[in-house]
Amino acid sequence: MAEATEMRMAELARRSELSVPTIKYYLREGLLQQGRRTSVNQAVYDDAHLERLRLIRALTSVAGLPLSKVREVVEAVSAEPTVIDAMAVAQDVLLGDGAQAETTGTDVKTSDVLDRVIAERGWRCERTSPAYHAAVNAVDELDQEGLTVILDRLGDYAESAEQVGRIDLDTVETVEGLEVKVRGVVLGSVLRRPLLEALVLLAQQHFAQEHFAQDFTGPGASRRR
Amino acid sequence: MAEATEMRMAELARRSELSVPTIKYYLREGLLQQGRRTSVNQAVYDDAHLERLRLIRALTSVAGLPLSKVREVVEAVSAEPTVIDAMAVAQDVLLGDGAQAETTGTDVKTSDVLDRVIAERGWRCERTSPAYHAAVNAVDELDQEGLTVILDRLGDYAESAEQVGRIDLDTVETVEGLEVKVRGVVLGSVLRRPLLEALVLLAQQHFAQEHFAQDFTGPGASRRR
Repeated sequence: MAEATEMRMAELARRSELSVPTIKYYLREGLLQQGRRTSVNQAVYDDAHLERLRLIRALTSVAGLPLSKVREVVEAVSAEPTVIDAMAVAQDVLLGDGAQAETTGTDVKTSDVLDRVIAERGWRCERTSPAYHAAVNAVDELDQEGLTVILDRLGDYAESAEQVGRIDLDTVETVEGLEVKVRGVVLGSVLRRPLLEALVLLAQQHFAQEHFAQDFTGPGASRRR
Repeated sequence: MAEATEMRMAELARRSELSVPTIKYYLREGLLQQGRRTSVNQAVYDDAHLERLRLIRALTSVAGLPLSKVREVVEAVSAEPTVIDAMAVAQDVLLGDGAQAETTGTDVKTSDVLDRVIAERGWRCERTSPAYHAAVNAVDELDQEGLTVILDRLGDYAESAEQVGRIDLDTVETVEGLEVKVRGVVLGSVLRRPLLEALVLLAQQHFAQEHFAQDFTGPGASRRR
């Protein structure tokens, strides 16, 4: 992290890797806080502005979020959230509007098989949270597609998920600074997902060979025609 | 599973929950195999057709795949793949064109931190596979965004990923029938992802309270304003 110095717009653009018109757009939209005015048409910016721009850039280009979602996150950050709040914002944003909209009603859709696993693991979870709603939906979809073999192992998946969630939390704790922390939570969630799934696929590759290789005479025989 | 009986188009539509025009479109496109012709403009279909339509429906509506990808999967299934082949097809399809296109070249981008973890776990992985490429990309993105705290825990994430991959493989083994198995592998992968991530979010909720609750006087104090 660079030391706290004031900079002009051109320097801010260079260091944030964003164009001047883009930064001016974020200023007009209120996503970036105004700089300290030094004359009628000059202002200076500091590391707080740079950090905000890096958060916005990450949310738009890496997480692929629309500006309305970026605004939600930025507003949440401006309200000086705790880490719990920041994680809640990250979860809401990542799960999308669908999950949120449906949890605003008084009827919360629940799942017995999910609730049993939550109880087994002793998780304290909000039944009104988008995360719970997303889990119920995932269970429903698997059920509808007849993939009960996956639901039969829900407890095992939950055990692995618990480990992942614990590592996620550990990494959040090591990061200093609120805006950096929120950026870490949101971006970490967005970028950790494809990492975990890619690792799962690699593990599958390994186990697929172990489990199924003995069914065939060799790798060349794996395609029957 | 219903007993093997022949049926007319109307019955096929009813049981597959697809419209007759949609089924005729799949026939014209060669995604659905032709029925047994009983007269000039009549044909009968059987459970193999129904199973194929359920696979197509799952790939389009649940997995949200474009028809070109559906064709890839259907062609792979028609070639009577082994389970390893089916998983490879599922991985390719789920990882998208980007990962595939870039692995066709001779230059395979590698990652030292990833290779170290793969070696630690003793995974046998294809460096030319889309899964490996996706993992390298995920590592690169985390690195570029300065989220090294996540990369520092790569070994721990890999351990959890290994458990998930093992459960995935177990569920595949319990399913009978090739087309059903492929459908299970592809759909299972598509639908297991949101399930696992939702479970991770629930676990995060739980740990966030455990880890951070002591910093504040109570839940009501978690927002400072």
